[in-house]
Amino acid sequence: MQALLLIAHGSRREASNDEVRILAERLAALSGDKFITVEAAFLELAEPSIPDGVSRCVTAGANDVMVVPYFLSAGRHVTEDIPAELDKARTDNPSVLVKQSDYLGKHICIPNILLTLADSELQPSCAA
Amino acid sequence: MQALLLIAHGSRREASNDEVRILAERLAALSGDKFITVEAAFLELAEPSIPDGVSRCVTAGANDVMVVPYFLSAGRHVTEDIPAELDKARTDNPSVLVKQSDYLGKHICIPNILLTLADSELQPSCAA
Repeated sequence: MQALLLIAHGSRREASNDEVRILAERLAALSGDKFITVEAAFLELAEPSIPDGVSRCVTAGANDVMVVPYFLSAGRHVTEDIPAELDKARTDNPSVLVKQSDYLGKHICIPNILLTLADSELQPSCAA
Repeated sequence: MQALLLIAHGSRREASNDEVRILAERLAALSGDKFITVEAAFLELAEPSIPDGVSRCVTAGANDVMVVPYFLSAGRHVTEDIPAELDKARTDNPSVLVKQSDYLGKHICIPNILLTLADSELQPSCAA
């Protein structure tokens, strides 16, 4: 039973945190019954924390949590801070598999997406 | 003659700024001869600034600059700070059309992209 945990930095501006929560709901709707739950969590400045986000997944019945960093670059947050938070979550939930995927900015479609944003005559669409 | 100006926040970590500069080079390669130049610029912490980035586009021969914000949410940076910097650039270059596109996080493909990152069995590809 796999859960998806979307991790964002977190903002003092609550509307930005809500954008992330709404995005997690969108992922849940798009993925059908693939994940037992889709949750959002934040590295700092917003709730839930990353360990609390993993706990929510486990409470929902997950024994496998796929963590997707909603980050643009491989900075310290992606390479050190998120892995450290995930280690805490693994200590709290030793029987749960917690994996971290590539971060958003590393996806090979990002350049194409930026070019469609730049093309004011193009109607954005998404075949994926 | 249109130029594309990719705008990122800027980081104290120079490798993150270089990721953005390399992304701009990738956009130039992918877009063929659509743009007279593709440049990267930064809101803060890195060079060139946004007005300097627009100037680079104009020096390359552009009379039309499409600005694409490499940002995930519609925070103050996207809604206030970048427009203010673009107004400075318009004052410096009154004959140049400077337009701001939607920011990356608003693209309708972002949820699909996040789901492909979450799927460890899926080989990421990009048809766009």
